[in-house]
Amino acid sequence: MSRSVRDYVRSIHDFPHEGIIFRDVTTLFADARGFRMAVDQILHAYAGMRIDKVVGLEARGFILGGAVAHQLSTGFVPIRKKGKLPGTVISEAYTLEYGEAIMEIHDDALRPGEKVLIVDDLLATGGTAAASIKLCRRLGAEVIGCAFVIDLPDLGGRAVLEGLDMPVHALCAFEGD
Amino acid sequence: MSRSVRDYVRSIHDFPHEGIIFRDVTTLFADARGFRMAVDQILHAYAGMRIDKVVGLEARGFILGGAVAHQLSTGFVPIRKKGKLPGTVISEAYTLEYGEAIMEIHDDALRPGEKVLIVDDLLATGGTAAASIKLCRRLGAEVIGCAFVIDLPDLGGRAVLEGLDMPVHALCAFEGD
Repeated sequence: MSRSVRDYVRSIHDFPHEGIIFRDVTTLFADARGFRMAVDQILHAYAGMRIDKVVGLEARGFILGGAVAHQLSTGFVPIRKKGKLPGTVISEAYTLEYGEAIMEIHDDALRPGEKVLIVDDLLATGGTAAASIKLCRRLGAEVIGCAFVIDLPDLGGRAVLEGLDMPVHALCAFEGD
Repeated sequence: MSRSVRDYVRSIHDFPHEGIIFRDVTTLFADARGFRMAVDQILHAYAGMRIDKVVGLEARGFILGGAVAHQLSTGFVPIRKKGKLPGTVISEAYTLEYGEAIMEIHDDALRPGEKVLIVDDLLATGGTAAASIKLCRRLGAEVIGCAFVIDLPDLGGRAVLEGLDMPVHALCAFEGD
């Protein structure tokens, strides 16, 4: 039987903290067939929809997002952690387990009315993705969807994004995390 | 006259420090035509050569490298700053203006004899790229080239890489930096 996207994901115990099982997509991306399958399945999920820009979330979302943008012949826009983007930015803070984090986008990276697909490797609590949706909307863009390789359903991210009226597509899920 | 890759790069003064002109590729990547041109020019430079894996350097090298790997139907392997990769890694330290930095690769990401193309956005002093070449070689891979969007010739990176017998390809250059 041929391997699915999920079969290429490596599970690493106790990273970054004891008791956490880290779902590692680098083994998926390092495999020629696995990487092509992941990118092509994302493309397939949005076939026929208008997409003007692909937005990738730092840092693994850059790998997927670059491939998806090139294949669609769209531009690619990064959303990064605070202080990494050199131009004028707008920011969104969100809550982590301890403290908060801030995501940023260049204030001229999207134009009003542009249709945007957000891409990242993993949907966990949805904090990063929710902040990213808000950033795109503040620039007047319409986010048509959020695509992930992996959903961790127990962490509730899908409900958070659907609460923002955002359709979510994930290529596979790991439960019990 | 049509715009070249170089024309899409934005120059930002005094980032990240006063007196530095930062060459910002996000304006290139955000433009559908610019991003496609950059990726396709890299692909063109290595047309007909055997490439088994594309290695992208954190973080902007992930955007380009993901697109190049997908187009070539190869795997993609990230080289990251210390502590970001979840599996067992090997490390290379290199010198910065003040202090040193450490780059890492998963120790099972490349196999002996694999032919590798390294991709990043910018060649400055060449420290990150030189450390990356060494990491690939320590895993037994053969680096067939290093591709950059921008070369800053005044900073001498090309000579550093050529001293490692590494062919360098850059899509454009900014002098006087």
